[in-house]
This record gives sequence, C-alpha cells and structure tokens, in this order.
Amino acid sequence: MKKRTFPLSKVYRLLEPGPVVMVTTASKGRANIMTMSWHTMLEFEPPLVGCVISSRNYTFDILKATKDCVINIPTVELAEKVVACGNSSGRKVDKFDVFGLSPVAAECVKAPLIGECYANLECRVVDARMVAKYNFFILEVLKAWIDPAQKQPQTLHHQGKGLFMVAGETMQLPSKMK
Amino acid sequence: MKKRTFPLSKVYRLLEPGPVVMVTTASKGRANIMTMSWHTMLEFEPPLVGCVISSRNYTFDILKATKDCVINIPTVELAEKVVACGNSSGRKVDKFDVFGLSPVAAECVKAPLIGECYANLECRVVDARMVAKYNFFILEVLKAWIDPAQKQPQTLHHQGKGLFMVAGETMQLPSKMK
Repeated sequence: MKKRTFPLSKVYRLLEPGPVVMVTTASKGRANIMTMSWHTMLEFEPPLVGCVISSRNYTFDILKATKDCVINIPTVELAEKVVACGNSSGRKVDKFDVFGLSPVAAECVKAPLIGECYANLECRVVDARMVAKYNFFILEVLKAWIDPAQKQPQTLHHQGKGLFMVAGETMQLPSKMK
Repeated sequence: MKKRTFPLSKVYRLLEPGPVVMVTTASKGRANIMTMSWHTMLEFEPPLVGCVISSRNYTFDILKATKDCVINIPTVELAEKVVACGNSSGRKVDKFDVFGLSPVAAECVKAPLIGECYANLECRVVDARMVAKYNFFILEVLKAWIDPAQKQPQTLHHQGKGLFMVAGETMQLPSKMK
C-alpha cells in the first residue's frame, strides 16, 4: 500500500465520523497496538485530538512516558485483527508479530504506523492535565498519511461488546458546515 | 414516537460509534438546537461525555449559564434538518419552530428533548475546566430515552462540509471488549 501525505487541515474529516482506531506506541525498541473508540477532534488546525486511554492498558504508561503515538484507521478487512488487538495485552504479546501487521517507520514520532491501515496520524501528547482524572490525553497531529486508492473506506464503528457498524453509503447535503 | 428509558450503563453504545447529534438547550423559556459531531465518551457509568461547543455558537453561552442540555441522536430521515440546524443560529431563529421539530419536556433538565430523534440523553455539565482553552464541556448523562421500535438506527456520521456517512450493516465479532 503506497501512502501519500494528507493535509493536516483535513484530518478532522477522517476522525469526526467516529471510526474505531488502533493506537500504536513504542518503547525500548518494542512496539504495541491498542484498539480505541473514545476519541474526538478538539481543533481543526493544527489538528488536536482528545482520547481516553485507560490506565489499565499497557499503552497508558508508554504514552505517558514517551508522549508519542500513531492513530491508525483500519477498514472492515481488518475487523478480526482490530478485535484481537482489543482482546490482548502488549504486556504479554508482540501484537504486530502475532496478528501479522506491518510496522512502518514514522517520520515525526518513534511509534510505528500500521501499514495495513488506510490512514495514519503521527501524534504527540500536548496536554496531559486531564489524564489523572479522566485518562484523557490531548494529542496534536504532526503528520498524516493516507492510501489514495481508498475512495470510500469502510471504517468500523464500535457499538459495544464486539458489535460493529460498518460505514455505509455517503450523502452530500448543501452545507455551510466546515 | 413512544420512548422508553434506556439504562445509563448502556449509553456508551449509542455514542461510541460517533453519530452526529443535536444538542438542545433552554434559556428564559426559549429552546435552541445545535448540530454537533465533536464528542466522546469519557466514562461508562455514570456516563460522562466530553464535547466541543464553539464559543461562537449561541449554545455556548446558554450551556455555560444553565449547565444543562440534551444530546439528541437523529437518524437519516432527519438529515436535512440536521444540516439546517447546523447552518443557522438560534440568535436569529427558533429552530424548533422553523424546522418543524417537536420539543418534549425532559425529566431532569430544563432543555427539551427533540421528539423526532430516536434517542435522547438528558445531561448536566459536571466539569467546565477545559472550556476556556478547548471549548470542551464534560457532561454527565442523568437520564436516557430511546425509541424501542428502532432496532438498527441509521445514524449520520459527518465527514466534513455536509458530506455524511450513513450507518451501514452491523457485524458481531467474538469479543471481550466492553
């Protein structure tokens, strides 16, 4: 999959619909993956993303320490791997290896991109003041990548307990909304 | 549409997939509606929701003052009204009246439910510390309502500039995820 850079000003268009994402981190030469659905845009540009990463997750301590991660957006073809990553801990397994996902070097952060995901957002923690109370990290997207071949990516949207809604048709309405 | 109460412990299942919502507020006997897509769950129970409401919006000042609102979840049948609410300001028009939506009295808050939406979450602002910097309000859901007739609601997911993804098929995968 050949990725192109994607304008930071358009990053909100990828996350605003609410897809399940896979967060990658790296520490001491070892990468990890976490499935996440609790995220929201906070600002258009530079793009800021707020997300909840439970303190029970292996990713939590790594992100607090390294302050960098990648938000990877999978499509329906990866559904089983998305769930597998959500059901296992990086404390016990190397998820890239076990689930057959490809780490790709990022440009601005140490965490790797997941090659199989159609979009990847390299992020840095810019505000950790809400972490103690809500496990809520504020990330700035530094660099974005997309697979230009995927025109209408079938993202996954988690409805709880492994039930996923798969992105359906799109409709364009005349709008003044950004 | 006859609504039933919906368990607070399951509220995350409505918002986690990332639907466009309509936020209602009330002030001095006058109700308003705002279209919103920047929200995330922050806690399962009691359900906490974080959301961005721009300080440019009429809703911002009302919510800051009254500290109560309703998050209403529309389906595709309401798409034109969702956009119309996003393209107009409550400073100038009474959106319930102009767009033909039905205000229904809430139980725990002064803001009205939108009768036509398939789910309604009565909310109170519980943390406003992130409002000054990020326009980010933290809400607690006090009471939830749902139309039990809608088994697979076709929610709307905004991809920017009036382009919406409509909820597609669902798939159940074996999962330990909540």
